[in-house]
Amino acid sequence: MTDRGQESAGIVTSNGASPPTYTTLKGMGLVNSAFQPEDLLKLRHGNLGIGHTRYSTTGISELQNCQPFVVDTLHGKIAVAHNGELVNAASLRKKVMRHGVGLSTSSDSELITQLLALTPPMEEKDTPDWVARIKNLMSETPTSYSLLVMYTDVIYAVRDPYGNRPLSIGRLVPISKLHTAGAGDGDTEGWVVSSESCSFQSIGARYYREVEPGEIVQISKHGVKTLSVVPRPEGDLPAFCIFEYVYFARPDSIFEGKMVYSVRQRCGRQLAVEAPTDADVVSTVPESATPAALGYAQQAGLPYVEVLCKNRYVGRTFIQPNTRLRQLGVAKKFGALTDNFAGKRVVLIDDSIVRGNTISPIIKLLKEAGATEVHIRVASPPIRFPCYMGINIPTKEELIANKPEFQDIAGYIGASSVRYLSVEGLVAAVQGGILTEKDQRIDSNRKPSWRVGHCTACLTGKYPVELEW
Amino acid sequence: MTDRGQESAGIVTSNGASPPTYTTLKGMGLVNSAFQPEDLLKLRHGNLGIGHTRYSTTGISELQNCQPFVVDTLHGKIAVAHNGELVNAASLRKKVMRHGVGLSTSSDSELITQLLALTPPMEEKDTPDWVARIKNLMSETPTSYSLLVMYTDVIYAVRDPYGNRPLSIGRLVPISKLHTAGAGDGDTEGWVVSSESCSFQSIGARYYREVEPGEIVQISKHGVKTLSVVPRPEGDLPAFCIFEYVYFARPDSIFEGKMVYSVRQRCGRQLAVEAPTDADVVSTVPESATPAALGYAQQAGLPYVEVLCKNRYVGRTFIQPNTRLRQLGVAKKFGALTDNFAGKRVVLIDDSIVRGNTISPIIKLLKEAGATEVHIRVASPPIRFPCYMGINIPTKEELIANKPEFQDIAGYIGASSVRYLSVEGLVAAVQGGILTEKDQRIDSNRKPSWRVGHCTACLTGKYPVELEW
Amino acid sequence: MTDRGQESAGIVTSNGASPPTYTTLKGMGLVNSAFQPEDLLKLRHGNLGIGHTRYSTTGISELQNCQPFVVDTLHGKIAVAHNGELVNAASLRKKVMRHGVGLSTSSDSELITQLLALTPPMEEKDTPDWVARIKNLMSETPTSYSLLVMYTDVIYAVRDPYGNRPLSIGRLVPISKLHTAGAGDGDTEGWVVSSESCSFQSIGARYYREVEPGEIVQISKHGVKTLSVVPRPEGDLPAFCIFEYVYFARPDSIFEGKMVYSVRQRCGRQLAVEAPTDADVVSTVPESATPAALGYAQQAGLPYVEVLCKNRYVGRTFIQPNTRLRQLGVAKKFGALTDNFAGKRVVLIDDSIVRGNTISPIIKLLKEAGATEVHIRVASPPIRFPCYMGINIPTKEELIANKPEFQDIAGYIGASSVRYLSVEGLVAAVQGGILTEKDQRIDSNRKPSWRVGHCTACLTGKYPVELEW
Amino acid sequence: MTDRGQESAGIVTSNGASPPTYTTLKGMGLVNSAFQPEDLLKLRHGNLGIGHTRYSTTGISELQNCQPFVVDTLHGKIAVAHNGELVNAASLRKKVMRHGVGLSTSSDSELITQLLALTPPMEEKDTPDWVARIKNLMSETPTSYSLLVMYTDVIYAVRDPYGNRPLSIGRLVPISKLHTAGAGDGDTEGWVVSSESCSFQSIGARYYREVEPGEIVQISKHGVKTLSVVPRPEGDLPAFCIFEYVYFARPDSIFEGKMVYSVRQRCGRQLAVEAPTDADVVSTVPESATPAALGYAQQAGLPYVEVLCKNRYVGRTFIQPNTRLRQLGVAKKFGALTDNFAGKRVVLIDDSIVRGNTISPIIKLLKEAGATEVHIRVASPPIRFPCYMGINIPTKEELIANKPEFQDIAGYIGASSVRYLSVEGLVAAVQGGILTEKDQRIDSNRKPSWRVGHCTACLTGKYPVELEW
Repeated sequence: MTDRGQESAGIVTSNGASPPTYTTLKGMGLVNSAFQPEDLLKLRHGNLGIGHTRYSTTGISELQNCQPFVVDTLHGKIAVAHNGELVNAASLRKKVMRHGVGLSTSSDSELITQLLALTPPMEEKDTPDWVARIKNLMSETPTSYSLLVMYTDVIYAVRDPYGNRPLSIGRLVPISKLHTAGAGDGDTEGWVVSSESCSFQSIGARYYREVEPGEIVQISKHGVKTLSVVPRPEGDLPAFCIFEYVYFARPDSIFEGKMVYSVRQRCGRQLAVEAPTDADVVSTVPESATPAALGYAQQAGLPYVEVLCKNRYVGRTFIQPNTRLRQLGVAKKFGALTDNFAGKRVVLIDDSIVRGNTISPIIKLLKEAGATEVHIRVASPPIRFPCYMGINIPTKEELIANKPEFQDIAGYIGASSVRYLSVEGLVAAVQGGILTEKDQRIDSNRKPSWRVGHCTACLTGKYPVELEW
Repeated sequence: MTDRGQESAGIVTSNGASPPTYTTLKGMGLVNSAFQPEDLLKLRHGNLGIGHTRYSTTGISELQNCQPFVVDTLHGKIAVAHNGELVNAASLRKKVMRHGVGLSTSSDSELITQLLALTPPMEEKDTPDWVARIKNLMSETPTSYSLLVMYTDVIYAVRDPYGNRPLSIGRLVPISKLHTAGAGDGDTEGWVVSSESCSFQSIGARYYREVEPGEIVQISKHGVKTLSVVPRPEGDLPAFCIFEYVYFARPDSIFEGKMVYSVRQRCGRQLAVEAPTDADVVSTVPESATPAALGYAQQAGLPYVEVLCKNRYVGRTFIQPNTRLRQLGVAKKFGALTDNFAGKRVVLIDDSIVRGNTISPIIKLLKEAGATEVHIRVASPPIRFPCYMGINIPTKEELIANKPEFQDIAGYIGASSVRYLSVEGLVAAVQGGILTEKDQRIDSNRKPSWRVGHCTACLTGKYPVELEW
Repeated sequence: MTDRGQESAGIVTSNGASPPTYTTLKGMGLVNSAFQPEDLLKLRHGNLGIGHTRYSTTGISELQNCQPFVVDTLHGKIAVAHNGELVNAASLRKKVMRHGVGLSTSSDSELITQLLALTPPMEEKDTPDWVARIKNLMSETPTSYSLLVMYTDVIYAVRDPYGNRPLSIGRLVPISKLHTAGAGDGDTEGWVVSSESCSFQSIGARYYREVEPGEIVQISKHGVKTLSVVPRPEGDLPAFCIFEYVYFARPDSIFEGKMVYSVRQRCGRQLAVEAPTDADVVSTVPESATPAALGYAQQAGLPYVEVLCKNRYVGRTFIQPNTRLRQLGVAKKFGALTDNFAGKRVVLIDDSIVRGNTISPIIKLLKEAGATEVHIRVASPPIRFPCYMGINIPTKEELIANKPEFQDIAGYIGASSVRYLSVEGLVAAVQGGILTEKDQRIDSNRKPSWRVGHCTACLTGKYPVELEW
Repeated sequence: MTDRGQESAGIVTSNGASPPTYTTLKGMGLVNSAFQPEDLLKLRHGNLGIGHTRYSTTGISELQNCQPFVVDTLHGKIAVAHNGELVNAASLRKKVMRHGVGLSTSSDSELITQLLALTPPMEEKDTPDWVARIKNLMSETPTSYSLLVMYTDVIYAVRDPYGNRPLSIGRLVPISKLHTAGAGDGDTEGWVVSSESCSFQSIGARYYREVEPGEIVQISKHGVKTLSVVPRPEGDLPAFCIFEYVYFARPDSIFEGKMVYSVRQRCGRQLAVEAPTDADVVSTVPESATPAALGYAQQAGLPYVEVLCKNRYVGRTFIQPNTRLRQLGVAKKFGALTDNFAGKRVVLIDDSIVRGNTISPIIKLLKEAGATEVHIRVASPPIRFPCYMGINIPTKEELIANKPEFQDIAGYIGASSVRYLSVEGLVAAVQGGILTEKDQRIDSNRKPSWRVGHCTACLTGKYPVELEW
């Protein structure tokens, strides 16, 4: 489970015994810096566990908000990791506090944990019915959450009925069956759950399937088992976050049977159809817009070239001691590959324009280095509305599409022209996913068993459920 | 408020507004390393606050257990700092969990916080009666706790009815009235509460008085006010921890009207009466046994000399890479001041012998450097029983007084003789405190307004309340 | 000046006064981590300075070897930064030691500094003739060195007569004339010297020209002035390191009038001519082989696709706590973009194969993800010989081209076929550089004024000068 | 060898082979923080080595100046550690630079190393006569230096003819013969050399003897051997730094047969004779003045009490974020032990008053806490002159004895009276050392074999040699 964040990271493992021993690691920053190798050794004796990397949406950035949350209940300890943001968090907080519970953080994850603990009956002799408690929780809040709940020797993987946040299951393959690995005896078999399927390959697991919207999956030593699929209100489609395709997910992840890279490439093609350009070369703002740029070039029949190379060593966090360097700004992060575009008309593909302060100096850089025209084509529609379901989008006021300058955006950023992909074009590119015929092995896993639908609230203002203010 | 620990430190300040903004800082280690100066600046806008330095008794050592605990309740946020250990923590945990509260740490402080939050009534429109909630908490648990509870613009300082853990009030003096300070405009007035009065001088405050056993004191911009004094069961005396005098507190702190240094000096005198020695010089294991050694020397009419100097730079945490250095052990932490004792019979005063592995090499060092006899006199009775009220004493098995070797402790540690202070002698030394006649300024503050009594459980096994197993 | 290394970094500035004050900063690691912003402020009062980032070739990795070297001489302090490796370092060390000088490091830079200090005459009243001393140094050692020597208010930039190591001059442009920069008053003008011209853009400078092989350039407030051009032995061509083009330099740098990116692209084209493949798609091992892959695809008329995406967060330094993860090896650094190649024959371009332990798991990864064939095309000839002139190439024994496995390299690494670029092909690609006609501004600067020639010793074993053993 | 500093630390070991391998460790800060345990393991293969901890006198504080200095000479590598400051360093620097040597640091130690390397003859085939080179060095500079020179498998320990800086030899005792050590096989025998004998005990060595002024001692696997004793100019006495006794050395060190603690105690007695006081109690500014205070109390027949306890946790480096705390200043570093002195007249012994800004707030603190009079007695004469021989004394202007306020120092610092020990009194206390009769074991080692004499330049302005300006 992961928010795919860089703010903090946490892992809790269970040894599966009765009563279980849980081992918890938490730290600030990326996983690599949050944990020391000697810390990780402490986790060795667990054979199941859940982890989380936090990317702050609500809640102040501090270790206290770091997930997974572990609480001791009348029936023993549970650990909970959560990706998403509850649309009715405020009224749920009131509810648990009215019951006399003090909440020590502002995070939805603690709230979820206390809601699970709170559910009656509360007699020690009773067996805890965690599935009933999870269903009860799901009846209290419609979206958005993908959850992992660990109890003793079982992990429950849960996706909200709207399927707003992703959640995939992978299967750990014994090393001996992986051609990519060296010889060895690390022959673990097992199951893994992750927000993004791209993480499976890194640990020698293979994509198995997605958790279905509303599904409660039980993972234990007996394997993977669907316990329930909680329905949506009649007539509602799922509302998987379309921004995952556009920007957030890694290109090698698979959602709804489609590889993100391919969706982005189709966005580029669609953009070439919607917004053709009279130009000499097509290029990309490295690296996230590259699939769309290749798609655009292919569809438009124009050569694809590289115009910028990244200056690896200019860190984002380097405090500029010098006015001159500060003024140079973004230009110093990229080198111009002059020979590829000097004297030419360039179509430059970007994946989105959020605040506009990155693309403008890049355009100037290209013009200074000899580009005769620089046309910006954006492989997504303009973002106009805030997200209340877990994506940290700037406020409405900060979004460039809501500023007066947007009326003449080309003039504002110094481009020869600017065009965006339409919302319809994006949805078409997302849904047009067909499988490569020859990819037999993963074919059957990839077809979604449910009717897909997407949340485009940040683009259209149409939220999948009514918001609580 | 402080556990006087080095494990972790926390501070929460409130701006006193309605609703208040609380600012929280927490970090591992000593205050100096736990906080950065830039962090402390964040606290500037508060005009009241509570802090805590943790010394682990129960609860695993981690940031999560770091106090103060802040929770959001139906009536707003409260912050709680706690020193002590609840004797009936286990049954209280069961109680709150039965109500459906998940506990995220093993600390008593979270437990206390949730108990305060839990107390009915639970309607949002109600005014929260925190004093009633504190009294309710006090009716649930007899000891041991000194508490600070902050709510918006008030701090409640609470000491359990047995007064087991210390708690003192000091008054911040304007800089202009302090001769010890440089000129300046830092003219803050106000009140401070601390486990030990020694901390007052460091911040320019003066000792005001102790919180009485069972007392609930309200501190606000209107000053210090006693709200209630919760009584003990009839016939029970207070049970202030006698180990604070012997070992734990700083010598310049004042408890029950007595300066700790003077109590220790009297322990030395009493020891000279109980266990006289035919010797040439009296000395100390630096630095904590020095007052007792000076008292012994004075009472015995023997010269006081220094026999050891500390090697400041041999850190406790230095990992020895070398067998030889490891074998040299404690000897390398001290230099022998040979000229002061070579050829002489030495009485060496120590404040306590917990495990015996420090005193033994010191005796050998002195003998190797020329002492003809080394008599150990311990200025406290042997510790034989565990503490369940907040002092981290080794297990019964580890305590040297419970080992077979204790029968011939002199032989075991290589001393010419070993004698301990009696329990009666210790109690007499503690209670025999009289004020220096000429010290007029602080006289009236110092006299305790209650009949004193002490917990000697670690020495006698007689616990002040029945323990819950 | 830079070794372009990540091992250590140093900067020395001079205030240009008489006598001058030099300020020195040195630290381990990348520039960003080696220096703190507050350190950099110390350098503000200098108006000239030299810096160095070290990449270890000879000399143990430690701060002591960190350049620039500053020494106090009879005539004041000089600071020296050096890129390269003296082919006759051993006999030069003997020479200075025979004169009675102790050498405190194993670095060539200290050796150069002491050689400059040593040159007679040695009377304090004399004016130091640094140019004569530099010429004297150049008469003692043929190659390889690019040098910066700072004395009071002058910097001498020197390139050895073979021009083995690069050295370029750039001109700082006032901010007001840079379209890429924000408005501001950072209107510094001046000159900068760097191993690679790519660094100029980052600081708002423009490429001016290269230092010619054998040239001594003086840089002062009076501008840039050629003082001398020391000739090579008759008949010898320059011997600029061809490996800079293949691998070492950043693609946006310019050497001998050619942009490195374009040279690499031509290598790809040349490779398509020399080693055509019957395949479906062309791709790259990201990111350094991308220009060659695009060139290959273009020349071969095959579609260029991406097959791998980098897993940004798998750091090189992460210590693997787990056998399984260690066995997964390089596979976890890349995600497979399955849809782009499943069921297809892939030509994968790499820039060089040094040890062979990276490419092999990548091939397996692609095959496992569905590639039917994976043909490796290497855009440079096999490396067979060690470099004694400043490039840290593995020992002869470690180079894959010298191992028995090289006879069946395709089988060894699991490829469908493997082909390398020929040495002749590489030289042709390097020399075939023509300027883009439309790039008028920088045209005249780019044409080299000397007859070019290249060192291909690592490929052919033909060293430009006789080596001293 | 040690400067006994906290600024930086270095160690060089030799494996003693031919040619030897030297291993070097250097780091900033105290030994504990400068080196990591894993670093120290690198040193294991050496069986001889020299180390140094730097305390800055001349030379900027940076790693480059960190000793020992290792240089490669025509005859192999030597390593040099140096304590002291050459009085004619400036003209010696000129001399080596005139020979063509560049000096990379401002430290005397590099200068000494280059002087040793420089000495002719310089033919590789010659055997290096290091003793002749050391004698040659000693003919060039009279003082002050204690030196360790390591070459292959020999260490030369050298003390300048005036014996200004201390240097002692100790003998490593097998663990099995040390009662203070646990059982073990760390049975190293060998020799150690140190500035202060106090360090011997920490590593299980015993004091053997001092290096005599002018002596060159050879230490090798064959033992300790005097090679030469270089004489002083006729009529000159040795000039051992008297400040070592007063302030600098650890109390358990032995110089000229006298334990430093005993000298300080005699200073206190002498002070009681010279400056008697009508008072009730005698006390100390902890901890360095304690021996003098005990001596004063004994001689004066007054009770010795403690009046201050140190606040361990107020670090020197804690940056005060708050005006109030900054104004509180030194008062927060000490707790007042009120009961011991309230209503009494206190004689407070300090070891020296350098700038006066520590003692003044302490006096105010005592008065505020109830002392009726506070008389300051300083156990050394006022410091009036700078030291040019290795002790970092403030400039003449900064020394309180040279300020106008010194005329009424008692008024200035707020004391009831102030008296200093006389220079004659100090010299008498230093020279009056007699051995404790019963201490038979170390008796013979302690008697100095030379006529002693002391440098009192900082007190009298009489320097042992003419200074070079």
